[in-house]
Amino acid sequence: MDFNKKLESYRREINGSLEEIFTKQEPAILYEPMRYAVNIGGKRVRPILCGIFYRMLKGKKKKVLYPALAIELLHNFTLVHDDIMDDDDLRRNQQTVHVKWDLSTGVLSGDGIVSLAYRVLIKEKYKNSDKIIKVFTDGLLEVCEGQAYDKEFETRENVTEKEYIRMINNKTAALLAVPAQIGALCAEAQDEIVSLAEAYGRALGLAFQIQDDLLDIAGDEALFGKTYGSDVSEGKKTYLYILAKKLMSEKDQKVFNSIAGHEDATKAELFKVKKLYEKYGIITKAEEEAAKYIKKAAKIINSFPKGYDVTELKEFTEWMLKRKY
Amino acid sequence: MDFNKKLESYRREINGSLEEIFTKQEPAILYEPMRYAVNIGGKRVRPILCGIFYRMLKGKKKKVLYPALAIELLHNFTLVHDDIMDDDDLRRNQQTVHVKWDLSTGVLSGDGIVSLAYRVLIKEKYKNSDKIIKVFTDGLLEVCEGQAYDKEFETRENVTEKEYIRMINNKTAALLAVPAQIGALCAEAQDEIVSLAEAYGRALGLAFQIQDDLLDIAGDEALFGKTYGSDVSEGKKTYLYILAKKLMSEKDQKVFNSIAGHEDATKAELFKVKKLYEKYGIITKAEEEAAKYIKKAAKIINSFPKGYDVTELKEFTEWMLKRKY
Repeated sequence: MDFNKKLESYRREINGSLEEIFTKQEPAILYEPMRYAVNIGGKRVRPILCGIFYRMLKGKKKKVLYPALAIELLHNFTLVHDDIMDDDDLRRNQQTVHVKWDLSTGVLSGDGIVSLAYRVLIKEKYKNSDKIIKVFTDGLLEVCEGQAYDKEFETRENVTEKEYIRMINNKTAALLAVPAQIGALCAEAQDEIVSLAEAYGRALGLAFQIQDDLLDIAGDEALFGKTYGSDVSEGKKTYLYILAKKLMSEKDQKVFNSIAGHEDATKAELFKVKKLYEKYGIITKAEEEAAKYIKKAAKIINSFPKGYDVTELKEFTEWMLKRKY
Repeated sequence: MDFNKKLESYRREINGSLEEIFTKQEPAILYEPMRYAVNIGGKRVRPILCGIFYRMLKGKKKKVLYPALAIELLHNFTLVHDDIMDDDDLRRNQQTVHVKWDLSTGVLSGDGIVSLAYRVLIKEKYKNSDKIIKVFTDGLLEVCEGQAYDKEFETRENVTEKEYIRMINNKTAALLAVPAQIGALCAEAQDEIVSLAEAYGRALGLAFQIQDDLLDIAGDEALFGKTYGSDVSEGKKTYLYILAKKLMSEKDQKVFNSIAGHEDATKAELFKVKKLYEKYGIITKAEEEAAKYIKKAAKIINSFPKGYDVTELKEFTEWMLKRKY
């Protein structure tokens, strides 16, 4: 089957199961925004990845795994609260919870979603349940740490590459490592295999995030998009931004500073930033950094014992990372 | 030993253990406000109750139980987020987290505390670990539901007594039922005993909350306190408020409405509300309702099998409920 069709069918199954989870309707003031936030869409990357690892490692169950759904809920919880912290009005072209309702509802429904995530996580018992819960919990705390670093970056200009990588490792990569590990744990994989799954998820997450940073401005296609350079105009501390601060001459930094972080920056100005990024080899450097993690992920995939069919994992990885820019 | 001294020693032990939990310092932007919120004080009622049940049911360990600490963290998480939702500036005479830092820090450190709560909860394995985690998780979601009902009450005047009791059962009583149950589960008590523990915690919580509502205005002592009638001036939907809306004549409701919910209400006006409460037997009715649950709690205590020494549980219950008003 074509991988995109496969993804579609996984997604349908996951969405159906997520819907079933919301058996309770009352208090509507809690469950309505919770359901809204979870149904707002998304690619369901994390539960899909969890399922892929589970099947690859010869897990026996046919149906969607509850822990996979729990991870999707955990992810949605972080989105609801991050939107409050970043004061974002829209997510996937829909109003964010705290905008559609209010701040309290945003805080509370996020809390409700993380509670529900744990409830779903423990719904079914596995041989490795204790490890599954531990990985899930460590992931939750790690994501909070990542968000804290990200917030802290807003207040300073001297963020190093190392600090940036640590931040995205916590904030983005953790939530890809968790489903990979939990898929493996549900399949009762051995510790070394679970470690491989984690390493894969982290490499994937790091590559994905740096690519995402690049996508904002680097591609020719991006230029025609509505949100070209929005990271730049928001002054977001991306990998590119951090390199700019490190590498650009004082004169060019002045130009950069006059555009970055200015929400009214024009497309021409943003394009000027792109040119500056190119001048200092920043785009190439970011591409190389992403490539490093892509290579790492590929290496890990190939290191799984022979008996396992890694086809689907390869397809998934390509789909996640082979975005044009 | 005098029970108050015992409480003091329990509290010291709990506070010491809570301090040990914070081994990690970085990112400070996360762990500082988390530690602040947890160390802001409090009576540590929940972990103490958990320990009392554990010892009463012949649990074997000497040291403070991690699950007890996890419940205290869970409680603190709810306070940090509730303070945001209620826009409260002070808690125990100290600035609340979102005021001392900012909104984002309030949201995120609450999230961090609940993550840490789970991490502490699963730190040590018990025979009943799966049940312990389930009770804990159900409690977390229930508290969210209670908070949602409480929020929803703000928007309407026709809250019934039944709805009110359900709300405080979710919001207050759940977090006393959870430590009682978990104390019992850690001691490997049988299901019936765990159910008794839950029923006790709920009765205690309901009695406690209604007494708390009464304390705001009913006592002669309260009259001399700085915060006399603050529930009234804030227009909080307490048990008394709800009865007022149900029982008062139209004319008296007008008087009531001209005072309740007005932050600039004078002490004389608040005293007038007290007189109205008395006129309609509302204070007596609330006292009777509290007494009903106190009686229930006492009955449950006496229904524990003979082999268990309920002395400490009795002392605790008296200490919790024998507040003058």
